[in-house]
Amino acid sequence: MPRGLLIVVSGPSGVGKNTIISNLFTCLSDLKYSVSATTREPRPNEIDGQNYFFLTEAEFTKRIADNAFLEWAKVYQHYYGTPRSYVEKMLSNGVDLALDIDVQGAAQIKKALPEAILIFLSPPSLCELKQRLIGRKTELESEIELRLQYIETEFQAVPLYDYFIINREIDLTCRQIECIIQAERIKVSRQETNFLAKILRAE
Amino acid sequence: MPRGLLIVVSGPSGVGKNTIISNLFTCLSDLKYSVSATTREPRPNEIDGQNYFFLTEAEFTKRIADNAFLEWAKVYQHYYGTPRSYVEKMLSNGVDLALDIDVQGAAQIKKALPEAILIFLSPPSLCELKQRLIGRKTELESEIELRLQYIETEFQAVPLYDYFIINREIDLTCRQIECIIQAERIKVSRQETNFLAKILRAE
Repeated sequence: MPRGLLIVVSGPSGVGKNTIISNLFTCLSDLKYSVSATTREPRPNEIDGQNYFFLTEAEFTKRIADNAFLEWAKVYQHYYGTPRSYVEKMLSNGVDLALDIDVQGAAQIKKALPEAILIFLSPPSLCELKQRLIGRKTELESEIELRLQYIETEFQAVPLYDYFIINREIDLTCRQIECIIQAERIKVSRQETNFLAKILRAE
Repeated sequence: MPRGLLIVVSGPSGVGKNTIISNLFTCLSDLKYSVSATTREPRPNEIDGQNYFFLTEAEFTKRIADNAFLEWAKVYQHYYGTPRSYVEKMLSNGVDLALDIDVQGAAQIKKALPEAILIFLSPPSLCELKQRLIGRKTELESEIELRLQYIETEFQAVPLYDYFIINREIDLTCRQIECIIQAERIKVSRQETNFLAKILRAE
């Protein structure tokens, strides 16, 4: 069975990552959302192992020490991380995983697992991004300014990424990501090396 | 304007390269067939610069000495080659070029132009390839045997290639190559490096 792909999607807040990833899950039934570990409390409807792996802080920090995360970060008072063994098991079983993560996390993942496919989603323009952030009415004006200031840092990380997509239209971006997945699957570097044996076996 | 892509397609005789490439030209109107240079005589309906660049042997060997070919080969008494300046001009003008070439030629091209995208087309099985060769009735049995013996050499070159496609069904293979082209176009390594400037300019 061919090994699964780990698809990492990053991009500035407001670029439309969530919409794109939700659409991908609809189109690509084989793609699964990678489950993260966290120390925050489960919300009433959340299931352990499905929404998150819920860990105590002691468990989490022990696993950091054991190098058990492909990446981790502390956001305010809680830890979040991508469990290495879980990802490895899914990929070995041929499952494609998608992960929505910031540029620091993506850089950690690429270092830990160079086979990961890093996709950076860009807005068509800063102006349009600002309009989207204002339009969704979830942030205060001061927060929007902070997010826009962070963009320069995010764009400095683009050279670490494999693909750069300007998200002009959701359907087009989803088709481009589907193409990335199709193309990556047939890369020589991702296939078993004895190509001749493959067609001899098929005889 | 984004630079064009050079798509190099190889594969054993009988794998269906010509059919695939013809289909690609129908689907992808931006894709052009790369025009080769040759010393053979033009056939009545052939146009210089469209079917081939027709050169004298003296011109051809001078250009070999001038390193003016991305690859060249002598097949029986005639020379064939891919003119470097022609390919460079087309790619600079944003034209995608396709080229059907054997594994030696593809290796020369990858060395001369590492940005070239090498695609190896494989038959589903040796048995099926033999059936196709027999079915097309263009080769004698002894020639078919020679072609089948050459397959081992061809497959040894696969690690040089970027993509390995098992050509099970023409439409599927064409869609895979379309995806490769789509995905390669949005690779970070093929885009201008100042990503932030791009979206700032768009403002």
